[in-house]
Order: sequence, then C-alpha cells, then structure tokens
Amino acid sequence: MIDRIYLDNAATTPLDPIVAEAMQPWLEGRFGNPSSLHASGRLAREAVEQARHQVAALLNADPGELVFTGSGTEADNLALVGVAESFAPGDCHLVTSRIEHPAVLSTCSYLARRGVEVTFLPVGADGIVDPAALQGSLRQTTRLVSVMAANNVTGAVQPITELARIAHEHGTLFHTDAVQAVGKLPLDVLAQSIDLLSLSAHKLNGPQGVGALFLRKGVELEPLVHGGGQERGLRSGTENVSGLVGLGRAAELARVTLAEENARLVLLAERILTDLASRLPHAYLIGDRYRRLPGHLCLGFQGQEGEAIRLLLTLDDLGIAVSTGSACSAQHAGEPSSVLVAMGFDPVRARGSLRITLGRFNNDADVCRLLEVLPEAVESLRPITSHLAMT
Amino acid sequence: MIDRIYLDNAATTPLDPIVAEAMQPWLEGRFGNPSSLHASGRLAREAVEQARHQVAALLNADPGELVFTGSGTEADNLALVGVAESFAPGDCHLVTSRIEHPAVLSTCSYLARRGVEVTFLPVGADGIVDPAALQGSLRQTTRLVSVMAANNVTGAVQPITELARIAHEHGTLFHTDAVQAVGKLPLDVLAQSIDLLSLSAHKLNGPQGVGALFLRKGVELEPLVHGGGQERGLRSGTENVSGLVGLGRAAELARVTLAEENARLVLLAERILTDLASRLPHAYLIGDRYRRLPGHLCLGFQGQEGEAIRLLLTLDDLGIAVSTGSACSAQHAGEPSSVLVAMGFDPVRARGSLRITLGRFNNDADVCRLLEVLPEAVESLRPITSHLAMT
Repeated sequence: MIDRIYLDNAATTPLDPIVAEAMQPWLEGRFGNPSSLHASGRLAREAVEQARHQVAALLNADPGELVFTGSGTEADNLALVGVAESFAPGDCHLVTSRIEHPAVLSTCSYLARRGVEVTFLPVGADGIVDPAALQGSLRQTTRLVSVMAANNVTGAVQPITELARIAHEHGTLFHTDAVQAVGKLPLDVLAQSIDLLSLSAHKLNGPQGVGALFLRKGVELEPLVHGGGQERGLRSGTENVSGLVGLGRAAELARVTLAEENARLVLLAERILTDLASRLPHAYLIGDRYRRLPGHLCLGFQGQEGEAIRLLLTLDDLGIAVSTGSACSAQHAGEPSSVLVAMGFDPVRARGSLRITLGRFNNDADVCRLLEVLPEAVESLRPITSHLAMT
Repeated sequence: MIDRIYLDNAATTPLDPIVAEAMQPWLEGRFGNPSSLHASGRLAREAVEQARHQVAALLNADPGELVFTGSGTEADNLALVGVAESFAPGDCHLVTSRIEHPAVLSTCSYLARRGVEVTFLPVGADGIVDPAALQGSLRQTTRLVSVMAANNVTGAVQPITELARIAHEHGTLFHTDAVQAVGKLPLDVLAQSIDLLSLSAHKLNGPQGVGALFLRKGVELEPLVHGGGQERGLRSGTENVSGLVGLGRAAELARVTLAEENARLVLLAERILTDLASRLPHAYLIGDRYRRLPGHLCLGFQGQEGEAIRLLLTLDDLGIAVSTGSACSAQHAGEPSSVLVAMGFDPVRARGSLRITLGRFNNDADVCRLLEVLPEAVESLRPITSHLAMT
C-alpha cells in the first residue's frame, strides 16, 4: 500500500504531532471544568488562559481580546450577528464581498431576512476586492465591513489593511474571516487595525471543533450562545480544554514557523505551476499569480471544466487528495462556485477548478508524485469528455 | 502525594479511557473534513455517522434526528432560539422553569429582551416542577415548553414525561435540557414523547466541546450558526470528528452500563447520607430523597450555610473536589443559588449548599475517604464562623 498524499490543506489539516502531544495529558487523566473552584478546575483554567496567550501572540492581540468558540464558522457568526443585533435591523447596513466563505455569506442572508441591509462588494477577474468599491458602498448606517483575509477557493489575498483603513475613516468596524490566512500570512491586528478577526484551529494543524474571535477591546457584541457566562459572557458553555490547549500550541507553532514555511510552500507550489505549464498547456491558474496564499493553487483545464469532480476522484484512486474548490460542502459539489462566478467565469467554467493546497507535512516527494500522475489523469479524461459531449 | 478524589461529576467528568482509545486514531494520523469527497473525507464522514447512530441508540431516536453542536449550552440555545425565531416575537410565548440551567435561563432572558414572552414555572420545596403549574401557564401562542430532565444543583428529577404530555395536549413542543440526565437516567424520546433534547459529551465521560440536540423529525428550527450547511443546515461548521467519535463511544458505554452504574451510585450516595445523618446531625439533604439523580447529593449544614466556599476549599486542600452547587460559573460563586431561592430558601441559606456528585470512577474507597474528612472539615469551620459572626 502506498502512503496517501494529502493536498487538501485548505479543507482541513492533519493534527501536528507536537500539538497532539500538548493535548495528550488532557485526554489521559487530566481534566477539569475551568469554572470549578477546586484544584482540578484551577488547572483547567490555567491551561485555557495559556492558550489565550498563545493565540494572542500570533495575532499581536491582547489575550483579553480573544473569545474562544467551537469553530471558525461560529466566530464569523458571532462577529456578524453580534454586531448587527446591537442595532435595530433598519439601522444596520453591512458590507461584505461576493467571495466570502458560506460562514459569512449565509449569515448575511440570515441577517438580510431579518431586515438588515447587506452590500456585497464585487471582485475583479483576479478575485480581489477593489478598495474603491468599498469606498462607494459606505453609508451612514454601515456598522460593519467584513472581508476575508484570503479566499478559500482561489487563495487570493485581500487588501484588508486598506479596507480596514477605509472602514475606519468612515467610523465603521472592520471584521476579517482569517480562517484560511491565520498561520499562513503574517497578521497583526494592531498594525493592520483590525477590529474583529475569526480563526479556526483545524486549518493550522490544530484540532477540529475549536475556533476564536479576536474582538478589539471596547467593541461590544450581543452573544450568540447564552448561558453560564464563560468567555466574558460572550460565548457560554464549558470550555473545551484539550481542544483549546491544542489551538494554543498550534498557534505557537504557526508563529514560530510561519516565515520559513511560507517560503517553502511558495516554492513547492511554484514548481507545480512551472511543470504543468510545460506539460499541460491548457492548464491555467485561477486568480492572481502573486497575491495568493503560499501553497495554494486553484487550477482550471481549458475545455475540461466539467470534469473537475471526476479528476478529483481519479486522483483519489491514485492516493492523492485534492478538492474541486467549487464549494465548501460536499452536498454542493458540482454546482458552479460562487467565487468563480463573482470573478466573471461563466457557469460551466465556474464548476471546473481543481484546488491543490499544500501544508506543513507536504514535501518535495509529494509534489513529485502529483506531477507524475496529474498530467496523465487530466489527459485521460479527455476522450470521455468528448464522448459525453457528443451524446 | 495522595491521589485526588473527584466528587464533582456534575461539573465535568473524567474522559473514560475507553472513549479516549476510540478517539486516539483521530489524534494520531487519521484526519479528514467530512465534507471532502476524497477517501480521507469519506472516512471522517463515516466516523461522524457512526457517532450519530451511537447517540441515537442511547435515546431511542433516529440518527437523522440528531444535530451535533459544540456544547450542551449551544444545543439549548439552538432549541430555544431556533423555535422562537420561527415565529414573530409577539406571536411567541415560551414556558420554562425557575430552576433551569443558565444555558436556558440566559437564553430566555435574551429572547425576552427581543420581545418573546416567557413564563417561569415555580417549583416546590422539593425542587420539582408541578405539572399543574404548566397546565395553567399555557396560552394560544405558547410555542415551546422547556423543562430540564434533572437539575444540576439538587439533582431533582423532573416529571418530563407528564410535562411533555400536557404540552402536546395543547399542541406545544416540548424540549428538555437533559445535560445532567443523559447517561444517568434511562431516556427514551419516543416513549416519553420528547420533541427536543439537549445533551453534552463531557457530562458522560466523553470529551469537552461536543454536544447534541435531538430534534424530532418534522420539527423546524432557524439555525443558530449559519454557513456551509453541515448538520442538515442546522449547525454549520466543520465537524469535530475526534470529539464526535468520543461522544459516540461515550453514549454507547452509557447505554450499556447505565442500569448497573445507576444502582451502584445510588448505594454509594446512600452510604454518605446515612453516615452523615449519624455524625453530623445538622446536615440536611436539599431536595427530594428519591426523585434525584443517582450519586447526586446536595447538602446543607444548618447554621453554616455562609461557609460553603470555605468548606469546598478545605476539602480541596484535603484532596477532595466538590462544588458549592451555588452556580455553574466560578464568577458567581458566593451568590445565592437561584435554584435554592426558587425552592423557598432564604438568601443566606441559598448560598450554602455543598454538591457532591459521584461518577463512574468513584468507588467505596472514595466515599470512605470523604466520610473520614467531611465531618471534621465541617466542624472545623464552626469556631471561625462564630468568631466572624461576632466581629
């Protein structure tokens, strides 16, 4: 049996063994409810607060500015619903972009059904929001601008520092869904003047089921989950101690390795691009060549866009995991990607991207193996495609 | 160093090593996003669905009737907010009880601030809701009755089967916060005609950060967390696979061991009660003697009610973890318990309970040790109490 090669790190990442090791005591005998007053509770509380410091250090935030949640999606919901519910629906206008993750888009739809006005900023063919578009969208009632730090389909890095500046000039809060960016791009909430930022542990080699919202001191939110008052009343529910310990350790690792990893992943991805350019001339890169997450490739194959899922399954049979990048949820597989549609792709081409996302545990050998099989896999689908097209 | 004795199983429980073992593969190399189409994603999906079957079997539910969440608190919020938001605020009346967990009480306060009417049913001196009170509270606009299966402070078991029957006769849905009861009381959503039920993994020797809402087929809810459409669109966010595997295994263990464990814990608790009755005549049991969770004791000490926290800390120094049972969150420690106030305790006595909650890993030796030190610990606080009373 050959080892499987995982090139779908934008979907989820393997748990780093160093992170697993940090969590281990909490899965083998150590336990406690951080709200308990006895020793077991106090030890759990310390572990949670250590994690808060570790995450804060990654973002240059104050530990007191972090609210732990059960996922990045929950953090996005808390940011958007929490700000919107602080105002009467008719007195609240939100600005976001057309290429946000469903965690933001669906939440905006929910708020829109409840009377909140939402503007969706367009993107160019490069998949990047033009700050001038934000400038034109702001109103007196605009309470929040939410634009992702990097896109989950194309990897396109968004100009969040500039967007935040424009929002602030207008007196509006700025939130960024940084689920894909945290641990891959240097982020500094202070220098970049970000008011709210969502992240998820399992995208940075931490455990699933843990996320966080950075919330600048002084920004007030209506909580999404009410109860015992944990997380300064902003997210009730007994803390997931082992999960938070994992998030903390993952954040620390990301902080220390970010620069080096970044360079390594850029080069690995570049090698894939260069090789494919010479061997598969009908392959094209979707999105900007440079303003892109390291190790993140979104590819199209001219004339074969309808075959993305079959290509995914072919590669899967060969032991290589990639994504179609058309949607975050399997149930939507095969539908046109709203991100690619927003970039101006026609519906057929918008169904047809192949997302290859490298991570910490990928190496040269993985890239070699991919380059060994991908061109053939793509070519092998050609005849069938043509055949199907004729029926 | 002596082994610490943990008698605070109502706050959180140690992870069962059998549960940890089931989770282990997902913390050591196995991983995947259940929404991914490739092999790694499909394996993760299978694991999540197996967990769904295991939890369903414990409740006699259909696996398709379970929505996984990040905590019991989130499940409570989803139930209450989800039902309430399906109606206009003025067209929605909720009935709950005065002794609910903050996960329900705070959520009701939130809904009340948004225009939903809420009735809080009283309890008797035994801490139990009188079904007749529910009968009198129902209105044409009553959309949901939510009464916990067993109380977290006193352990009082509530007549949920009868409450559900009354709610249904009136055409109203019935939800129960069964976070304390699941795994300790036999629950059967079909036989008991429960429409919604919340549970939490870490209360039944499973991991923290995982909960579930049972939602009877056909009951419609507005989701609390919007996004990628996981959990049939009712709770978006990448699934916590290792956590859910743990919940599933914990549910399976609870199902198999429930009857035997139940009897064992009843006897251990009875031994504590009998012994204290002879040695500490001013000790009294709070709540009903029989309609109580197995292994759950809520004690008062006549004239020493103000010393509950000092007693907790004294026991902690002696290596025994208990709770004051006055509130679920440490930040409220020392405040009167709203549960005891609802039972008719004056504010001073309502501050003074000691909660001892036994669990799967407690044994005779633990009880022996407790009985060895508790009477002396209680007596030792007397002089200081009197002294403080005089200053």
